[in-house]
Amino acid sequence: MIKKIGVLTSGGDAPGMNAAVSAVIRYASSNKIEVFVIKDGYKGLINDWIEQADINYAQNIIALGGTAIGSARLPEFADIKVREKAVANLKKHAIEALVVIGGDGSYMGAQRLTEMGINCVGLPGTIDNDIVSSDYTIGFDTALNTIVQAIDKIRDTMQSHNRAAVIEVMGNQCGDLALYASIATGADVISTSESKLTEQEIVDQVTAIAKTGKRSVVVVVSEKMYPDVHALAEKVEASSGYVTRATVLGHIQRGGSPSAMDRHLAVTSAMFAVDQIIAGKGGLYIGLDGTKLVARDINSTLNMPRKDKTEETNKIRFLNAQFLK
Amino acid sequence: MIKKIGVLTSGGDAPGMNAAVSAVIRYASSNKIEVFVIKDGYKGLINDWIEQADINYAQNIIALGGTAIGSARLPEFADIKVREKAVANLKKHAIEALVVIGGDGSYMGAQRLTEMGINCVGLPGTIDNDIVSSDYTIGFDTALNTIVQAIDKIRDTMQSHNRAAVIEVMGNQCGDLALYASIATGADVISTSESKLTEQEIVDQVTAIAKTGKRSVVVVVSEKMYPDVHALAEKVEASSGYVTRATVLGHIQRGGSPSAMDRHLAVTSAMFAVDQIIAGKGGLYIGLDGTKLVARDINSTLNMPRKDKTEETNKIRFLNAQFLK
Amino acid sequence: MIKKIGVLTSGGDAPGMNAAVSAVIRYASSNKIEVFVIKDGYKGLINDWIEQADINYAQNIIALGGTAIGSARLPEFADIKVREKAVANLKKHAIEALVVIGGDGSYMGAQRLTEMGINCVGLPGTIDNDIVSSDYTIGFDTALNTIVQAIDKIRDTMQSHNRAAVIEVMGNQCGDLALYASIATGADVISTSESKLTEQEIVDQVTAIAKTGKRSVVVVVSEKMYPDVHALAEKVEASSGYVTRATVLGHIQRGGSPSAMDRHLAVTSAMFAVDQIIAGKGGLYIGLDGTKLVARDINSTLNMPRKDKTEETNKIRFLNAQFLK
Amino acid sequence: MIKKIGVLTSGGDAPGMNAAVSAVIRYASSNKIEVFVIKDGYKGLINDWIEQADINYAQNIIALGGTAIGSARLPEFADIKVREKAVANLKKHAIEALVVIGGDGSYMGAQRLTEMGINCVGLPGTIDNDIVSSDYTIGFDTALNTIVQAIDKIRDTMQSHNRAAVIEVMGNQCGDLALYASIATGADVISTSESKLTEQEIVDQVTAIAKTGKRSVVVVVSEKMYPDVHALAEKVEASSGYVTRATVLGHIQRGGSPSAMDRHLAVTSAMFAVDQIIAGKGGLYIGLDGTKLVARDINSTLNMPRKDKTEETNKIRFLNAQFLK
Repeated sequence: MIKKIGVLTSGGDAPGMNAAVSAVIRYASSNKIEVFVIKDGYKGLINDWIEQADINYAQNIIALGGTAIGSARLPEFADIKVREKAVANLKKHAIEALVVIGGDGSYMGAQRLTEMGINCVGLPGTIDNDIVSSDYTIGFDTALNTIVQAIDKIRDTMQSHNRAAVIEVMGNQCGDLALYASIATGADVISTSESKLTEQEIVDQVTAIAKTGKRSVVVVVSEKMYPDVHALAEKVEASSGYVTRATVLGHIQRGGSPSAMDRHLAVTSAMFAVDQIIAGKGGLYIGLDGTKLVARDINSTLNMPRKDKTEETNKIRFLNAQFLK
Repeated sequence: MIKKIGVLTSGGDAPGMNAAVSAVIRYASSNKIEVFVIKDGYKGLINDWIEQADINYAQNIIALGGTAIGSARLPEFADIKVREKAVANLKKHAIEALVVIGGDGSYMGAQRLTEMGINCVGLPGTIDNDIVSSDYTIGFDTALNTIVQAIDKIRDTMQSHNRAAVIEVMGNQCGDLALYASIATGADVISTSESKLTEQEIVDQVTAIAKTGKRSVVVVVSEKMYPDVHALAEKVEASSGYVTRATVLGHIQRGGSPSAMDRHLAVTSAMFAVDQIIAGKGGLYIGLDGTKLVARDINSTLNMPRKDKTEETNKIRFLNAQFLK
Repeated sequence: MIKKIGVLTSGGDAPGMNAAVSAVIRYASSNKIEVFVIKDGYKGLINDWIEQADINYAQNIIALGGTAIGSARLPEFADIKVREKAVANLKKHAIEALVVIGGDGSYMGAQRLTEMGINCVGLPGTIDNDIVSSDYTIGFDTALNTIVQAIDKIRDTMQSHNRAAVIEVMGNQCGDLALYASIATGADVISTSESKLTEQEIVDQVTAIAKTGKRSVVVVVSEKMYPDVHALAEKVEASSGYVTRATVLGHIQRGGSPSAMDRHLAVTSAMFAVDQIIAGKGGLYIGLDGTKLVARDINSTLNMPRKDKTEETNKIRFLNAQFLK
Repeated sequence: MIKKIGVLTSGGDAPGMNAAVSAVIRYASSNKIEVFVIKDGYKGLINDWIEQADINYAQNIIALGGTAIGSARLPEFADIKVREKAVANLKKHAIEALVVIGGDGSYMGAQRLTEMGINCVGLPGTIDNDIVSSDYTIGFDTALNTIVQAIDKIRDTMQSHNRAAVIEVMGNQCGDLALYASIATGADVISTSESKLTEQEIVDQVTAIAKTGKRSVVVVVSEKMYPDVHALAEKVEASSGYVTRATVLGHIQRGGSPSAMDRHLAVTSAMFAVDQIIAGKGGLYIGLDGTKLVARDINSTLNMPRKDKTEETNKIRFLNAQFLK
């Protein structure tokens, strides 16, 4: 039976990462396994920022946002010499396996470490919901609620003043934050990274809405799609007549105390990951499949195709545009 | 093609009911179907409290808690004469089909009305997550977040004062609110309607925790399981030594602006229900199956067995009790 | 005794405006005065968008964000001919007095209308807290909480990743939102419209913090002070070494359900305003002075000097910079 | 100049206590004073639970609910022998003065310690707003917002179902939480510890409202005023015809991340307290007087009369009862 494992968080922080770290520590401890936390992701492996986990600490971080054990990017981890240093540090502490919590940027490192003898099991931790091998990712639900609450507030002002708003949300090549937020708020115009509208299409749609006399308009767009959303808002204003402002939600989308379901996914998938490690497995990423957790070979997840959401997006556009006769 | 439909909410109010009503109105309108809202559930059918739906109204209620069109209990709807009055009122308005949003108490009415010529399609609207034919129900996620935030707050005070808390949550024969909330908050002792502890077991578990020196203890119990949770708290205090107070979360669990995922489920399942009605179907209840929506015969859903959660509950107990050596 | 009054909201919407409108309607009704709501501020006066208020409506809007009766800018209200039209419309409805809820942009209109025979009493409704004649304004507390919650979230991410954030908040020439938010969050660097730092000073302060090894830095700045906060963030990054991102909180600061104290101020000052009108007074603006409400001549409020906050700001800088040895 | 001070929290925990502790540590450190935290209030003084404060710790607790340094009751502190032990422990660490954060139960201890040579300065920390020498107390605003959000949620359900709710809130002999919450939510019936209604009066008022056809009723009562609020709800139901349920908000009112204004009061009053200590003063309690902080002799504060709120309460009753013709 395995005696010592490590846990780290990698890539962009996501609400629920702390709940996952907490559950790894608590569940492994319940199973008589010693747990070490690695600070600042793979960077901490290289620098030997490795500390024995404390059970009180594990208790106290469940509800906190961000990642209390730190995260960092480390492109040089692709270099085998760098990874050898990591493995040496792990062996020094007699750590035999790792739970890696992070987005798809952390997959390859987990796979390579497994190949070098350290069994790694990954948890999908990112607000972007861009991990194809899991229906939902840890952090998505919290970020989505933050976005929905922000859009609700902006709608208040738009409705008060007979205006239009262009709102840019995160997603990193995945339109789910934009799409789900649009469903939840009744956004009038939707442009996602997977079902993109041109600037002219956005301008035309808002102008068409203006003709129906609708009091307020909310346009939701994914990040990195238009050169300047403020300039886009000016174009919308010039054509539609609505006073129009752009808001880039930015970094408020990442932090915050995790939602109940993000904590639920974090805790249950963390236990499931530790179960894999106890079973002697590695090179796996945990995913949510319906209401079941599954463990997939990292290599197999890399080629999974992304679900096409064009039809769903168009259906929501049809729903939310009922004003357009 | 169908021309006029009605929508009503039935049973206990749940966050997201308004988002569902909104989506029924907006989606049916987009499909050139006229929508009527029936006030106060089946009671409004009998009393002809039926009004044409307004599209601005539909827009404005998406984010609101409760049910803006009212709900009520009507046991006498089991009487065919009462239902004939309902059908007569619907025919007066030329309403051919109904979307019914509510818990399993509304199933039978929907089935009976379908048999009498009014195609009914139901949406699972209840905070209790006690509808076996759907993985999650509309309102569960919001109520769960309300509970988790309340427990987080109570934990603050228990941790400040070295105390224990007994917290009673809703669930109506279904332990999911209690179980999920315990997972999300690291509750120390868990007793659900599906995996019940005796009062003595609760007292013993808290007393065992006290011996480990843990600073605070949270006990989460489902409603309707113990004659008096305040008396239970006294027993816990007498044995464990922790100053112990009980909190019955009560009606704060029902209201509030719906969470993003409750709105998502409400909106997508509402569209799916209208699609069934357009297809000429009735006697169906919509359920979430993984990430897919399914429409099941009401009769078939009545005999679906409840998932046994004993193993999962015990696993969470094992996780959360890592202090007990 | 006066028989009919109107109520309108003017200028930027602020949380609590609806609670104020609600209290005007309810309190005047309790005093047997008929209330009319004017839609879209002074614009509605000109266009006769005037409707009798409904008591159920008044009940239902207390907790809502924005202004349900609309607001708009109307620079041409400075023209006497335009105002004569407003007075004519008011006389048509036999409305003898007005409660005006809005920022200092609405003062002059209220004063002029009073001089033309319509007694106006104003309530300080703006998130900016820039009305010198009131310690706090309706909407400030809610906006401040929204900002503080946003900064807390951004701090989560900065702390997770060892980064710096530049956060721009509203305030419109008044630094209170920036200053209070900095106090509440422990912001490391503070630049307000009343105690401005140059870009170089900000860069230098963050660079000095970097040398102490502090994990995260939060810089809070008022709006309209730097040509481009994203460019400022780049300069901070270049000098300090922290990865640095700017976030412009923008319109999320205006909306949202009003906080308890914003509702309290809204309701109590609305009753106080109606009391002035009942007493036959006009040309007044209500202000909060400690825990007391006062009614001041509009003319006298125009020359009130703004409180100098330099000393207080410097004290907070001293407090929050304890890392700088 | 003073070199070492201590800080402790006493009595019931209140949101903002951590922000106050944080500011004491940070501000004193900025002033080259060493700070020690005393765990669990006066109990920690006796038991020598005294630790040097850490500046990172001070940073990280600003936004947390409860009191991270613990609190406890210690009636035996009235005994001089017990206090002598406290003074001996403080002298052992060379701690010359104390900041005491807590309600009026901590005043006497602070006064006695001052008389024994340890200058104590108190901060008003309690959710109850029952400290006459301060307009508002640290924690009141957060608790009030928690209550208002809870009542808003309960109103959702009452309005959905045509029901009445009896809601019991905290306050400990002070009606402010009940009164302010009633103002902010438009509660229909209000009974506070300072302006109490008999059970019969409550029943009669709700029954009168029922006759107007109002859809929902909310009754807000202070704690400890009726033997059993559930029995009271039954009486209300029997007379009025509304299905009526009681909710005791209980311990959810104490915890939670502090609001912006609670943190503001905590931080500014903490700095003010340290300033008093630096000036060599003791035996003082800090209070908020309008927007100014004042330091009053503890002895003088003990005899300050409580403000009579009967007139204000009656005015709110008049406002909120506009339905009663």
